[in-house]
Amino acid sequence: MEAPTSSTGTSPGTSPGTAPGAPTLESTPVPHTEEELASIKYDASGLVPAIVQELGSGEVLMMAWMNEDALRRSLETGRTWFWSRSRQEYWCKGETSGDRQYIREARYDCDVDVILFVVEQEGRGACHTGERSCFFRAFGSGAEPGPR
Amino acid sequence: MEAPTSSTGTSPGTSPGTAPGAPTLESTPVPHTEEELASIKYDASGLVPAIVQELGSGEVLMMAWMNEDALRRSLETGRTWFWSRSRQEYWCKGETSGDRQYIREARYDCDVDVILFVVEQEGRGACHTGERSCFFRAFGSGAEPGPR
Repeated sequence: MEAPTSSTGTSPGTSPGTAPGAPTLESTPVPHTEEELASIKYDASGLVPAIVQELGSGEVLMMAWMNEDALRRSLETGRTWFWSRSRQEYWCKGETSGDRQYIREARYDCDVDVILFVVEQEGRGACHTGERSCFFRAFGSGAEPGPR
Repeated sequence: MEAPTSSTGTSPGTSPGTAPGAPTLESTPVPHTEEELASIKYDASGLVPAIVQELGSGEVLMMAWMNEDALRRSLETGRTWFWSRSRQEYWCKGETSGDRQYIREARYDCDVDVILFVVEQEGRGACHTGERSCFFRAFGSGAEPGPR
């Protein structure tokens, strides 16, 4: 966990996860061109899958969906913005939970239809269940399947 | 790269990538239950996104799509099977290129609508361009966008 570098006044020494409120990491916009943004291929619903991987550990934390505006917001703010298909609204990851994601790298695949974000994960983790990764259950593990 | 353990007669000492033909790694079925398979949520087209991550390096290699049968084949054979939306057919990764993927772990996310495979990657890599990962281009890198 980096020392606070933003001007939000977070006191140094605050241990991660204790205060869901104040950010402890710095948002950094991701350099990009309009040509790159325009090249992304969205599906019939105007969405592109966005994989989120943790910097350092390499753990795959989650996958969610972005429309063009969510992708633009993500690159411009350095935080992950998604489009909720169920709620039909934008959400900025961690804005209410404190489990924020700070984008350190943004890549796109050979077909230009999947995005990969490498992030620093703040707070407990990426999953709404409290697990660090949304992929906390393995086939054959005996865990009860079904949404959680 | 592991030593050959299968009975295909691949000679030890063959360096990776020189012979696209013969498998050098062993396929191992992934334990799973019918209940787990039945719990997976597919989209309106009957597909689920499958992220492929490399064992050891943690590198995210690719994302492709599976229908129920492709997922079942993958778990039963221990190799990655996908459904090609453009060609409308099944493909087993590396079957023609030699760039095979051997599943060592299969996980599903909290919403049960994304699968994560951890694999050993044989041959050159996962990408049809010859790159190891399909995510070889970063925003802001100056690389020419567009499909390759």
